[in-house]
Amino acid sequence: MSAMSSAPSEIVSAAVLVIGDEILSGRTKDKNIGYIADYLTAIGIDLKEVRVVSDDEDAIVAALNALRNKYSYVFTTGGIGPTHDDITADCIAKAFGVSIDYHPRAVEILKERMAKIGGELNEARLRMARIPKGAELVANKVSGAPGFWIGNVIVMAGVPSIMQAMLDEVAPKLKTGTKLLSETIRADAKEGDVGTELGAVAKAHPEAIIGSYPFFDEKLGPNTNIVVRSRDAEKLAQAKVAVEEMLVQVKAQVSRN
Amino acid sequence: MSAMSSAPSEIVSAAVLVIGDEILSGRTKDKNIGYIADYLTAIGIDLKEVRVVSDDEDAIVAALNALRNKYSYVFTTGGIGPTHDDITADCIAKAFGVSIDYHPRAVEILKERMAKIGGELNEARLRMARIPKGAELVANKVSGAPGFWIGNVIVMAGVPSIMQAMLDEVAPKLKTGTKLLSETIRADAKEGDVGTELGAVAKAHPEAIIGSYPFFDEKLGPNTNIVVRSRDAEKLAQAKVAVEEMLVQVKAQVSRN
Repeated sequence: MSAMSSAPSEIVSAAVLVIGDEILSGRTKDKNIGYIADYLTAIGIDLKEVRVVSDDEDAIVAALNALRNKYSYVFTTGGIGPTHDDITADCIAKAFGVSIDYHPRAVEILKERMAKIGGELNEARLRMARIPKGAELVANKVSGAPGFWIGNVIVMAGVPSIMQAMLDEVAPKLKTGTKLLSETIRADAKEGDVGTELGAVAKAHPEAIIGSYPFFDEKLGPNTNIVVRSRDAEKLAQAKVAVEEMLVQVKAQVSRN
Repeated sequence: MSAMSSAPSEIVSAAVLVIGDEILSGRTKDKNIGYIADYLTAIGIDLKEVRVVSDDEDAIVAALNALRNKYSYVFTTGGIGPTHDDITADCIAKAFGVSIDYHPRAVEILKERMAKIGGELNEARLRMARIPKGAELVANKVSGAPGFWIGNVIVMAGVPSIMQAMLDEVAPKLKTGTKLLSETIRADAKEGDVGTELGAVAKAHPEAIIGSYPFFDEKLGPNTNIVVRSRDAEKLAQAKVAVEEMLVQVKAQVSRN
């Protein structure tokens, strides 16, 4: 357990705020939500909500304030590039009621980057050094221009490779809770054939979260994965056994009929 | 123009509400948001917001009420199957303040389906015929169990093939607005090299929405797509020409330096 881990069974929650017209128009297909979901689950943070909003100041500020007041962390993606439609940093400053200005270290990072790859540190690129007051920079090992962290909000790029590098930077500093453990049980039955009995198992095991996910098996046809989740390994094991026993009983009954 | 089209330049807006723990845990990767985004853009409905919430009554009801009061339509996906964790229909009824009961036509559809594929219309499967009062059914040509439409909310399955079939069912009945037309201009320049000039073009063409999207070209390295959007074909063409002229000027300047 790392020094940053919380007390056992503490729940650390998070939301993701995806910012960008291009996702809502369908032009760009989001690849960040699923990645962040996997990542947070693995380190013991519960992703509770995702919102996607357009490049619109009011929409961004309203969503950010709703989410940051409700969850332990908010991770934003998109809108921190060098062009006029990149308005995330300004919106974050507005939401927090702080000023925004060129951050000396961010300017330095961009200068170093331009010296290295050959490019002009023009007005557009300098926009990427504008950081809300009080924010800490989040390093970007891929392309230089940093993200930032203010309050409980972590502001990352929308380009997946850069977002992923930024997440790696902040992850060791995040408070994490007790991991939600999970077990997947392949039912080899249709969802509708086990639904009633599964509901009874779920009711009898309130400390486990039991989900049912239909899928199509190329050979067997409609099939079901039952996923049991709990923060307590023993309760997880008990619920898993209960699901397995239920499946045996249901199948025995079907074969008797 | 179909009989259902709105007056020219009317904007019809929409939100998508994705319901499901499995998306937030990362276990299932959403494939519906991008599909619906493309679909709505193509028929002249502006997708303005997306939310993903867990299988939690309070979360679903709150998100649904926020979205249905704000946009012309809300499309939900997920949570209408036969198991205990499928609570969407009940949450929709609660949000609208109406009762929920077995819908005679939905029961009939499920009976016909079971007769056809061989299966028991048990308590679990009958859950899928519980429909909020006042809702109209949305046919499901893939697997029988219908979605429904109540007020401005269209409730669809989470399985992509079924969701897509349901969207095809409702699309002809949707009010649509003037399509947002778009043109993509490949800049063959880095985003940071054209950002300032592009901002000036955007300011001079307020009736077009101009977005800048970096991408990596295997041969040329960092590159940029500039997307110009407008509901007015003439204004779109003007903005496109302005972007193209700007690109020529910037490149001429670079080659002089």
